[in-house]
Amino acid sequence: MKLKIAVLPGDGVGPEVTAQAVKVLKAIAQEFDHSFQFKYASVGAVAIDETGDPLPKKTLDLCKNSDAILFGAIGDPKYDNNPSAKVRPEQGLLKLRKELGLFANIRPVKAYDTLLDKSPLKKQFIKGTDICIYRELTGGIYFGEKTLSEDGNTASDLCVYSRVEIERITHLAFKAAQSRKRKVTLVDKANVLESSRLWRKVVTEVSEDYKDVKLEYLFVDNAAMQIILNPKQFDVILTENMFGDIISDEASVIGGSIGLLASASVGDYFSMFEPIHGSYPQAKDLGIANPIASILSAAMLLDHFELFEEAELIREGVEKSLKLNITTPELNSKFNHITTTKVGDFIEDFI
Amino acid sequence: MKLKIAVLPGDGVGPEVTAQAVKVLKAIAQEFDHSFQFKYASVGAVAIDETGDPLPKKTLDLCKNSDAILFGAIGDPKYDNNPSAKVRPEQGLLKLRKELGLFANIRPVKAYDTLLDKSPLKKQFIKGTDICIYRELTGGIYFGEKTLSEDGNTASDLCVYSRVEIERITHLAFKAAQSRKRKVTLVDKANVLESSRLWRKVVTEVSEDYKDVKLEYLFVDNAAMQIILNPKQFDVILTENMFGDIISDEASVIGGSIGLLASASVGDYFSMFEPIHGSYPQAKDLGIANPIASILSAAMLLDHFELFEEAELIREGVEKSLKLNITTPELNSKFNHITTTKVGDFIEDFI
Ligand SMILES: CC(C)[C@H](C(=O)O)[C@@H](O)C(=O)O
Ligand SMILES: CC(C)[C@H](C(=O)O)[C@@H](O)C(=O)O
Repeated sequence: MKLKIAVLPGDGVGPEVTAQAVKVLKAIAQEFDHSFQFKYASVGAVAIDETGDPLPKKTLDLCKNSDAILFGAIGDPKYDNNPSAKVRPEQGLLKLRKELGLFANIRPVKAYDTLLDKSPLKKQFIKGTDICIYRELTGGIYFGEKTLSEDGNTASDLCVYSRVEIERITHLAFKAAQSRKRKVTLVDKANVLESSRLWRKVVTEVSEDYKDVKLEYLFVDNAAMQIILNPKQFDVILTENMFGDIISDEASVIGGSIGLLASASVGDYFSMFEPIHGSYPQAKDLGIANPIASILSAAMLLDHFELFEEAELIREGVEKSLKLNITTPELNSKFNHITTTKVGDFIEDFI
Repeated sequence: MKLKIAVLPGDGVGPEVTAQAVKVLKAIAQEFDHSFQFKYASVGAVAIDETGDPLPKKTLDLCKNSDAILFGAIGDPKYDNNPSAKVRPEQGLLKLRKELGLFANIRPVKAYDTLLDKSPLKKQFIKGTDICIYRELTGGIYFGEKTLSEDGNTASDLCVYSRVEIERITHLAFKAAQSRKRKVTLVDKANVLESSRLWRKVVTEVSEDYKDVKLEYLFVDNAAMQIILNPKQFDVILTENMFGDIISDEASVIGGSIGLLASASVGDYFSMFEPIHGSYPQAKDLGIANPIASILSAAMLLDHFELFEEAELIREGVEKSLKLNITTPELNSKFNHITTTKVGDFIEDFI
């Protein structure tokens, strides 16, 4: 297979981890005789520094002319603590999601047997956890109208959803559940929010098409509790943009490190693959950032193009690295000299 | 001291747990020679059944003519799964908060030494945790304009905050931090939301008045993770309404049971005290609901009127009941015949 892959390393540890994913994809290409072409472009704070724009037109064009996008991370503390900054790195990511119509963000959360001890949660609570979160990604309060009054003393954000936006991700979530444990849990705040009530209505209607899948409802506050108390109760979690952001980062504690969590963002025409950890600026260039989330995102990319065998091989490499303790320091109490690059090398060699 | 206390038992397990708190307050009154007068009124689904209104005028009037309100719980599944219901129990609670101007919801989260084993989190992660969450309670997306398009296919909720709303709770949070570990963590999503940027700006300004308190910022997604990974890093958490709802329920897992978590909702003129667990309808009338959250809410009520010694005595009673395993089933693997009422009786006797 021939694939044109746009690589957007972005900020912080983005470049280091993405480099490992590219390395692994190149090994796959060689091993399976595919032709993957990688083209690089800048995004985020790095792009602001270069061009003043967090998503330069050149970058967007490259993405639109590629089959898939491999994304690193975005964000820089120099913008975070300046509430009045006019341009911010995150706008680059949000615009990319919107422009490419990447409406479904898919975030698998798994408790690896070899890592059960690393989680702050007790083994018996998490062993066997296998959740897949479907987070809506181009609607809700992220993209609704924002206002700031002239005197700067009142600010607002609008959370808005339409039936179509809810329907399309709901179909994806139910289809995913059909080849999993056949359960979808809708997370919302329908006892307070009008938009959540629309979610509940539309999802209930769509669920009629999937009689073999069980639909459950959970208020987001309760969900935030249940994910820790009893994560094994979940199969597919379906939710809107903001709740999905919170719930999925929270769920990362189950695996023992956010450095393990990959994601795919898909739409009707494009797809993007990125680790769910952020730019982690404190770790930049120290060689301690875990590349596994990025490498597993590359595996999700292969899955997306139905290269299942290839994706599986990457996952085996990852599991092997975890088993042999070839892991970055946050997961490694034995060896502390294993760098981002070494983990990448190991998985590359394995392939 | 003379106190007029409005008691609003509400739905589900509300009445059973509130009855224990009242019993304990009566014991305190007797022991310390206070005069507490209790007057009851209905709210929530119960009130809808009786009057069609989740907050009857009679109830609101009683609250306005009382010194404090003891609240049970609200919510009924028959409304939850009916997105088109016109009247819903939660409106009673929200209206009460708004009408009484209860803008600050204070939720302490503590890891009791005797209960460390009950938490899904490992001991070493939670031992010593002592967090106090200040959640804004009368603004944000809970109270902004809601719309549903005529065709029913688009719904929206507006999240709006003004400087004044942010300032007043920020002062309370910083004052609280001054008599604690002198740290406030603002939880927001300032990299995406305009309202969060206003929060960050105003809180930073107010913090200038409290040079002895350290201010930190955390994005809500990261906060949802940090609360589990390292809860001991927190002292006072300050946040807006929706994030506070999620984060505080999540934090309840630290204590081992949401049945332990009390809250106070305060404003310039009124104050209300309620367990943070909901109506828990499955447990209604089974005698298994934990009354401690309600009893500790009563202790917060006493604190509010500077009856510190009295409040302390209740807390000692609670700790003793936990130590002796006089607890409801969710915390009790030894005895499973200890009911809601028995826990109340024990603490009453202790006093
Ligand atoms: C960087 C930020 C805008 C982004 C989000 O909130 O969506 C990130 O937290 C994520 O989850 O991908
Ligand atoms: C019942 C509901 C409206 C309420 C809220 O969301 O505020 C509850 O969850 C709480 O936290 O007090």
